Amino acid sequence: MSDRITVSIDGMGGDNAPSMIVSGIGIAAKSNPDVKFLLFGDERRILPLLERYPMAKAVCETRHTTDFVTNDDKPTAALRGAKNSSMRLAINAVADGEATAVVSAGNTGALMAIATIVLKTLPGISRPAIASSFPTQSGDSVMLDLGANVECDANNLVQFAVMGEVYARNELGLKQPSIGILNVGVEGLKGNDSVKEAANILKNSNLPIEFFGFVEGDDIGKGTVDVIVTDGFTGNIALKTAEGTAKMIAFFLKDALTSSILAKIGALLARPAIERFRAYFDPRRYNGAMLLGLTGICVKSHGGTDEVGFAHAIEVGINLVRRNFNELIKQDLGRIMAEEKGTDTGSEKNKK
Amino acid sequence: MSDRITVSIDGMGGDNAPSMIVSGIGIAAKSNPDVKFLLFGDERRILPLLERYPMAKAVCETRHTTDFVTNDDKPTAALRGAKNSSMRLAINAVADGEATAVVSAGNTGALMAIATIVLKTLPGISRPAIASSFPTQSGDSVMLDLGANVECDANNLVQFAVMGEVYARNELGLKQPSIGILNVGVEGLKGNDSVKEAANILKNSNLPIEFFGFVEGDDIGKGTVDVIVTDGFTGNIALKTAEGTAKMIAFFLKDALTSSILAKIGALLARPAIERFRAYFDPRRYNGAMLLGLTGICVKSHGGTDEVGFAHAIEVGINLVRRNFNELIKQDLGRIMAEEKGTDTGSEKNKK
Repeated sequence: MSDRITVSIDGMGGDNAPSMIVSGIGIAAKSNPDVKFLLFGDERRILPLLERYPMAKAVCETRHTTDFVTNDDKPTAALRGAKNSSMRLAINAVADGEATAVVSAGNTGALMAIATIVLKTLPGISRPAIASSFPTQSGDSVMLDLGANVECDANNLVQFAVMGEVYARNELGLKQPSIGILNVGVEGLKGNDSVKEAANILKNSNLPIEFFGFVEGDDIGKGTVDVIVTDGFTGNIALKTAEGTAKMIAFFLKDALTSSILAKIGALLARPAIERFRAYFDPRRYNGAMLLGLTGICVKSHGGTDEVGFAHAIEVGINLVRRNFNELIKQDLGRIMAEEKGTDTGSEKNKK
Repeated sequence: MSDRITVSIDGMGGDNAPSMIVSGIGIAAKSNPDVKFLLFGDERRILPLLERYPMAKAVCETRHTTDFVTNDDKPTAALRGAKNSSMRLAINAVADGEATAVVSAGNTGALMAIATIVLKTLPGISRPAIASSFPTQSGDSVMLDLGANVECDANNLVQFAVMGEVYARNELGLKQPSIGILNVGVEGLKGNDSVKEAANILKNSNLPIEFFGFVEGDDIGKGTVDVIVTDGFTGNIALKTAEGTAKMIAFFLKDALTSSILAKIGALLARPAIERFRAYFDPRRYNGAMLLGLTGICVKSHGGTDEVGFAHAIEVGINLVRRNFNELIKQDLGRIMAEEKGTDTGSEKNKK
């Protein structure tokens, strides 16, 4: 592997693939001229697009395949069939050391299943989780899992807490990120068994992390903690509920600001401020969720994003490589687990 | 019981009880001069307040008790202990026929536990659910369960669907409300066992309801369906996430509209429009969730609301009484279950 960063791209994943993918690479290449791309997909469709985006063409090596994973494919089917799908080949490139990160806007379940089998989980991690940052009243926070694991036990949640902490420290640049478990109340007696047991483990461990306790749905927007830990069912619904609420409010706000001549003039005067406000919440700015807990860097882009959003997902992958993220998380997990083993011994002693 | 509607009130529940309660009664009494109130709580604190709110005093009969349920009380403790808590006595009044609805802003878990034991569930319903309406891009929708049942099996969800349908028809005035189950994807293979099995039951039944299928988190704000069915863990988190997101956006919008002189002038010109927009999302306008599935009408107010919000929760209770809601739901449930029995026979026949 050369020193030049190589990102492998699933050229056929996403609603507007491959055109959105190719133009997204062009945008990402502009600010990352030192990065090379391996683009997997149907060359009959990709090569003409590359002619239109010379910026992308200059940094792309294409790999032809006509197989691809659709959004309707079951993860198990995508895993067992189509060994030459663009998604699978792009992930293989990371496992083979040809690339240092993979980005796909395709079927989340399939990406998860293939990446887990091909890239394997890090030592001590039983299941990877999807993690992404999002805007809050007090800066960006991280939430995981956003949909990889529909059901999670207490140990999964504890592992998510540790991985989320490492992610927030390295990606958001926080010194000592605080961690909360999403629940229906902040009192210890509320919630299901998984969250109660996970909270107990985190509270009584000597893990070198700052465990805040339980947080509720409204703490997500408040930014009460830096890392929100939850199962993939709840996390997916919470994230999409927040997105849907933001869209609904934007809809009614637009309606209000065009409801009278005075309102229209007011909106015109306030436009620069409103534009900055909109830009802050632009979902493309947060596109690119990491599959956390694998031995390789794998980034999931929203399937419905555009080229600007896809370029951002590529940037997420590149930044993770530049910061040597997977080495950091391996070291941190090792250190945290060593300290945790110290905890166990300690608590055994305390019991005597 | 006279023809005059009597509402029993837990005078000691909520962050600013009893003062918020007494002034809330005053507000509700203004638009409902024919309604009588039974107010349970510490008369040493309530009677001086009634002197300050003559409107409330004129329609209130106080019942003295010094016991009350706190927010830290476990539901089981609240149920077994404090047989004379203001919450319990207020619920008893409905069971005894002294009142036709009860409203409390106190501990949700305790209210749920006591109301279920004292009022009992309707025939065919194994567990009550908390239901409330909320604003969407396409008018109001209903969601349940919002926190009564942390874990739900498929049968619970099916019962919630039936109860939610009746609620939406009678409370939102919809002729044929559509029903969706909240999930992490719309495809049949996604989600946990409970949602998959519930969807199968609803799809294959002859229930006279319009089952849409699965909906995702962003469908809540879109208003894709009129009734959103989910377990109490997910529902509680989704609702609070939506509230938190709305607050966060309001925070940043205010910030944007005061960020420059031009923005301030613009905001001033657009103020009437912005005020209407804010009023539409005022959470007090949606305060008052029904405990659906009990033999009596029981309304839960948000604990942190003010007198305007509490008055709205009272209005919710009064409207449910005026529309004879519990009689309607009993009839509807009976009819729906009779048709569902028809379904079973039908499907048995089909199998042969």
